[in-house]
Amino acid sequence: MPHRPPAEIGMPLAEVDTPALIIDLDAFDRNLRALPQKVAAHGVKLRPHSKTHKSPIIALKQMALGAVGVCCQKVSEAEALVEGGVRDILIANEVVGAAKLRRLAALARHATLGVCIDDAGNLAELEDAAIDFDARIKVLVEIDVGAGRCGVAPGKPALALAQAVAGSKHLSFDGLQAYQGSAQHVRNHDERRQAIERAVEMARDTKAMIEAAGIACPRITGAGTGSFAFEAASAVYTELQCGSYIFMDADYNRNLDASGKAAPEFEQSLFVWTTVMSRPSAERAIVDAGLKALSVDSGMPVVTDFPDAEFVRASDEHGKLAVKRQTEGLDVGDKIRLTPGHCDPTVNLYDWYVGVRRQRVECIWPVAARGALT
Amino acid sequence: MPHRPPAEIGMPLAEVDTPALIIDLDAFDRNLRALPQKVAAHGVKLRPHSKTHKSPIIALKQMALGAVGVCCQKVSEAEALVEGGVRDILIANEVVGAAKLRRLAALARHATLGVCIDDAGNLAELEDAAIDFDARIKVLVEIDVGAGRCGVAPGKPALALAQAVAGSKHLSFDGLQAYQGSAQHVRNHDERRQAIERAVEMARDTKAMIEAAGIACPRITGAGTGSFAFEAASAVYTELQCGSYIFMDADYNRNLDASGKAAPEFEQSLFVWTTVMSRPSAERAIVDAGLKALSVDSGMPVVTDFPDAEFVRASDEHGKLAVKRQTEGLDVGDKIRLTPGHCDPTVNLYDWYVGVRRQRVECIWPVAARGALT
Repeated sequence: MPHRPPAEIGMPLAEVDTPALIIDLDAFDRNLRALPQKVAAHGVKLRPHSKTHKSPIIALKQMALGAVGVCCQKVSEAEALVEGGVRDILIANEVVGAAKLRRLAALARHATLGVCIDDAGNLAELEDAAIDFDARIKVLVEIDVGAGRCGVAPGKPALALAQAVAGSKHLSFDGLQAYQGSAQHVRNHDERRQAIERAVEMARDTKAMIEAAGIACPRITGAGTGSFAFEAASAVYTELQCGSYIFMDADYNRNLDASGKAAPEFEQSLFVWTTVMSRPSAERAIVDAGLKALSVDSGMPVVTDFPDAEFVRASDEHGKLAVKRQTEGLDVGDKIRLTPGHCDPTVNLYDWYVGVRRQRVECIWPVAARGALT
Repeated sequence: MPHRPPAEIGMPLAEVDTPALIIDLDAFDRNLRALPQKVAAHGVKLRPHSKTHKSPIIALKQMALGAVGVCCQKVSEAEALVEGGVRDILIANEVVGAAKLRRLAALARHATLGVCIDDAGNLAELEDAAIDFDARIKVLVEIDVGAGRCGVAPGKPALALAQAVAGSKHLSFDGLQAYQGSAQHVRNHDERRQAIERAVEMARDTKAMIEAAGIACPRITGAGTGSFAFEAASAVYTELQCGSYIFMDADYNRNLDASGKAAPEFEQSLFVWTTVMSRPSAERAIVDAGLKALSVDSGMPVVTDFPDAEFVRASDEHGKLAVKRQTEGLDVGDKIRLTPGHCDPTVNLYDWYVGVRRQRVECIWPVAARGALT
């Protein structure tokens, strides 16, 4: 069973129980609108990644502002999105194993679904499942454009898979997934740009090779919050998958712009609300948010409103702050905001979003695909 | 809503969907029995920490083997335990804020509850809540015995709080919490022993000071899986809080014994079951378990059955293995076991345990207090 929400609609933020996952709705709304505006001139489509938010409510808000659909990573996430009313989903990932492929094919009877492949055996199993459910599934061949994770090499290996898909009745070859994940958090602007330039070149050449073989390659999909401006302007990518832009996090906030400044293109709208639960000394404050309330894989959270306090260590249910200077507002019982180091896995720790506007709770949304692992 | 379990009772392990949280039930049963046997000679009580497993089913198994009750960290965990039939719980942590204290006092009408304090203002609020619900609550004063987290200093500050508790009608002073958390993962055996010797001394002296003031101090509680042998033999600690011993993890397995060997006292019984989802090259395999299936705060998981493969990087939904030598069993679609770096926050990512004996699913248990944050 999910736990009870830590808040009620209309409650002042100060009364929201902790730890809680807070959305600053004004900043969130501005982020939602900003991405479409930033890329409008390029005529590129938006398909935001829902692995960030895991919420069909938020996915439908993105689509209401022009997104053609959303991405997700798992079949179980796609199931939660369809259940919540989303009807165009790309699983921007490989789906492996008969059990998952059955669920994918069955779901494709109820929504437009796409999926990535990088293996001929997996493709054959995908086709079997599609035939079994008489389903139509869009297939993207994933190419490795420098991230060193999944995907075949650009060029001939991608062409071979595209040809195999093109011969199928139930599967349609829709193009290439060319996501350069490892470029997203490269701090230096020029290095980030150069990594994407190399990805663009690989995607362009592979697309040309596939088209030369007589197979249409209408979609090149990729990009993230750290790099989307480059893909948008590339004239090669047709679809952007940015996800984190709606929330941001401490790690993305550290990326530098062309002038060498940390000047994020979006606002921080996601916070963890936490209580000071112990104040053993002037130099130490303990908060009630630790490893089970914050993902620390990309570094510790930032103590949002207290520059003189540093979050130095997380244990399971405790966060330890080093307080460098006498500071009001950090007494036992005081509640403060933390900016998570990495938003996606932090969101996955919560059952509920608490949406706040002008210090008052305006909405409580389930993190519907929280824990959607399979 | 929790997600569907990734398995069915009676299913072969090979068919269990991934990622899944697997308990090797034979090893788990041996761990359950081993701890009581190891400390039987010392006459010390066991109160295992349920923050590891978050399951009343497992808590009741521990109590059936002699544990006097369990610990937890949060009121919401205590609520899930009481709902599952557990009737003696120590919240081995401070509970701060009126909303949580109301829930704690209300729950104390339905089970024997204890809680820690380290602040006079918090104690006054706790007493107000207990009076409001006419509840009886056991109170332990937490002293900082070297962990540098919560707790007052040993000696006079602890005595002052004990005296304040002793004057209350609804609260009973039950003793000291003296948990040396930072000693648990000190690799070297002698250093670990010395850290606990210092903790023992502080607990002994503080207890003597409280008793000299005419207040009984029957309980000294603490210890973890890394140090329990020292506290058990101390003749000062009366109750041990070990939790991880039932599952173990890669981090605890690295602690050294007196001869300098990594020779864990318990068996690894918890695994993440994962599928090889991409095999882009001979040197790289990608599995479907990343940051949302594994906590990496204490290091990457170990690739349990493949010494030639190393888990080198986790992204949200992918794990990257470096494969050092040609290895069978790591093809696309193959399922393998990972040993989590840190069991507690890994368990918290799952809705279900899949209990396996002789390669067959024997039980599916909910992680009842998964996400119990408040």
